Amino acid sequence: MIKVGVVDTSFARVDMGSEAVEEIKRLTTRIRVLRRTVPGIKDLAVACKILIEREDCAACMALGMPGRDEKDKLSALVASYGIMMAQLMTGRHILEVFVHEEEAESEAELVELCRNRAREHARNLVRMLLSPEEMVRLAGTGQREGFADVGAAKKLR
Amino acid sequence: MIKVGVVDTSFARVDMGSEAVEEIKRLTTRIRVLRRTVPGIKDLAVACKILIEREDCAACMALGMPGRDEKDKLSALVASYGIMMAQLMTGRHILEVFVHEEEAESEAELVELCRNRAREHARNLVRMLLSPEEMVRLAGTGQREGFADVGAAKKLR
Amino acid sequence: MIKVGVVDTSFARVDMGSEAVEEIKRLTTRIRVLRRTVPGIKDLAVACKILIEREDCAACMALGMPGRDEKDKLSALVASYGIMMAQLMTGRHILEVFVHEEEAESEAELVELCRNRAREHARNLVRMLLSPEEMVRLAGTGQREGFADVGAAKKLR
Amino acid sequence: MIKVGVVDTSFARVDMGSEAVEEIKRLTTRIRVLRRTVPGIKDLAVACKILIEREDCAACMALGMPGRDEKDKLSALVASYGIMMAQLMTGRHILEVFVHEEEAESEAELVELCRNRAREHARNLVRMLLSPEEMVRLAGTGQREGFADVGAAKKLR
Amino acid sequence: MIKVGVVDTSFARVDMGSEAVEEIKRLTTRIRVLRRTVPGIKDLAVACKILIEREDCAACMALGMPGRDEKDKLSALVASYGIMMAQLMTGRHILEVFVHEEEAESEAELVELCRNRAREHARNLVRMLLSPEEMVRLAGTGQREGFADVGAAKKLR
Repeated sequence: MIKVGVVDTSFARVDMGSEAVEEIKRLTTRIRVLRRTVPGIKDLAVACKILIEREDCAACMALGMPGRDEKDKLSALVASYGIMMAQLMTGRHILEVFVHEEEAESEAELVELCRNRAREHARNLVRMLLSPEEMVRLAGTGQREGFADVGAAKKLR
Repeated sequence: MIKVGVVDTSFARVDMGSEAVEEIKRLTTRIRVLRRTVPGIKDLAVACKILIEREDCAACMALGMPGRDEKDKLSALVASYGIMMAQLMTGRHILEVFVHEEEAESEAELVELCRNRAREHARNLVRMLLSPEEMVRLAGTGQREGFADVGAAKKLR
Repeated sequence: MIKVGVVDTSFARVDMGSEAVEEIKRLTTRIRVLRRTVPGIKDLAVACKILIEREDCAACMALGMPGRDEKDKLSALVASYGIMMAQLMTGRHILEVFVHEEEAESEAELVELCRNRAREHARNLVRMLLSPEEMVRLAGTGQREGFADVGAAKKLR
Repeated sequence: MIKVGVVDTSFARVDMGSEAVEEIKRLTTRIRVLRRTVPGIKDLAVACKILIEREDCAACMALGMPGRDEKDKLSALVASYGIMMAQLMTGRHILEVFVHEEEAESEAELVELCRNRAREHARNLVRMLLSPEEMVRLAGTGQREGFADVGAAKKLR
Repeated sequence: MIKVGVVDTSFARVDMGSEAVEEIKRLTTRIRVLRRTVPGIKDLAVACKILIEREDCAACMALGMPGRDEKDKLSALVASYGIMMAQLMTGRHILEVFVHEEEAESEAELVELCRNRAREHARNLVRMLLSPEEMVRLAGTGQREGFADVGAAKKLR
């Protein structure tokens, strides 16, 4: 049984963690999920590192919703940086799944975007762990999580 | 007895550390607090790391008040980055509790905001250490420390 | 047989990894390539580190296409930073091969630019591994990967 | 005898290191100072780390004067970041004492500001090493090094 | 015999590495220089780390020429950050010698600036290794590498 960590925040306005957990369970029975919630995005990295090191998770998802202000953007930078370092220190993948509030135009759209992005990244995680050769088939195909894919650029004929 | 570190600064204009210490004591008798004060926000990270490594604190709070200038914002970035790295190097949570002076419109409001944010994060810390399952119940509920919560985004019905 | 890792993304709109792999194979039979694909540029660094540490790759190429938005530029910064740290933690070179979508004016030009930059960096990698003295001969000659070289600056005579 | 490192730069326009050394000597006979000078602010961090690791300094002061240009501000960011990492890697405090040239309006004012800031931070260092409980008494009191203190924010009565 | 590493890039438009090597040789016979060239500035840090760790260089010079675009400035930030980390991880000095193309107004001026800055930093390196007390005599004297020194700020009499 492969273990995977899913960590989200109480700051976010959508329960992204539950979406990710449900999607993983829907896709496979070979992965067991450990769920944690932390206050904000800067608390995600160490929570993932703890899940990897103490619970032997093979990979993690770090889900969060950075705010709109300039200082929130710097927080997102530090949070990303921490998730990057946690990956390098553990040698395991941690997928960063952030939704910026201003990406959506209404609350209903925000719920939808969070749901779709969390689930599409859950699919990425399952592919990376269970069938990495499928990822190579997707190389350069312009995948977008939560929105429609843009597709591969076309050469002149 | 679980030990927790609380570190604040002499640069801040409100004694945020005392608010955090009092709130932790008010909430539980199972946690013992170690208090330190450093000159500025860039001195917080190593002070927390020392409390974790030499005093075996299970977690820390790092409280500070970044200034208004452009260069103060870069200082806040470096300070946050350090708190992030200290968490990853020790595998323990350090809650960053920063209040930017311009978040409040008067001195009285600043005092109030610092007090509320410090105390709400103290509650987060206690929950994370003593009842982490409570945190999961708060996932995606739009919690805000120091201001009113914004709540979860609503889906279309 | 020297092993080299080539990692690209499903986010990119051109299959940059295949270009790099083909070019390496065209240039030499002394290098064996291991190929991986990850979702986005922030997943490249740890994938390279895994290839170096678990598969003993002597060096890697990390290929990606950052998006156009402000937040994509911060993602590119974090991705670069991670590739830098992965190099320092392993003591091996990882060539960062990024093409920003706005560097090209049409889809056809984007395909061409990705192809050329990936292949020119593949040549750099082969030179660094098999004939480092050739690199020294190119010092200060204004090489540009994917575009025409600008050449050395001329002194007054 | 406690050892402390004082490192400054040849780029700065005021001999900040000498001010710090004199102030420490004036305040106590229990600390021995080791002095170094490096070219610029990005050379400070490793010089401090060497003093801590090879000479067993209990703490350091890193004094410098970032330039006025945009690229100087990025240099200051990297320099600060390095001082942060050096602290975390050694578990010792390194007080960053930077004076930006534009903080003063004349050369004479610049000399005065450097002198005052270096000496006030020297006092912080001595307090942190010899009487840390004094620091806690200063928590939230709005201390400013080199300029007049702003004081604690006042609550409504 | 002390070994020193000199690393430059094929991206730069002036052969800065040769200037540094010649100046070191002109100044002393007690230092042996190891020379490497990498593609761009983000490849410098790991190349220096390899020279320090595998070849036991006592210090390094990292020479490069960041481009003019916004994204080149972010590359310079990551490159600087890497050089900083390489210093802290090895405990050895690496002098960063960057010339931004826009610092000079003509190609001839660019050649001259690169030559002067590389040589002045070579002198810094030799001083730091062979006569560190000379560096302390230069503390706060406003040294500028490649341009005229600005000198120490004057106090009021």
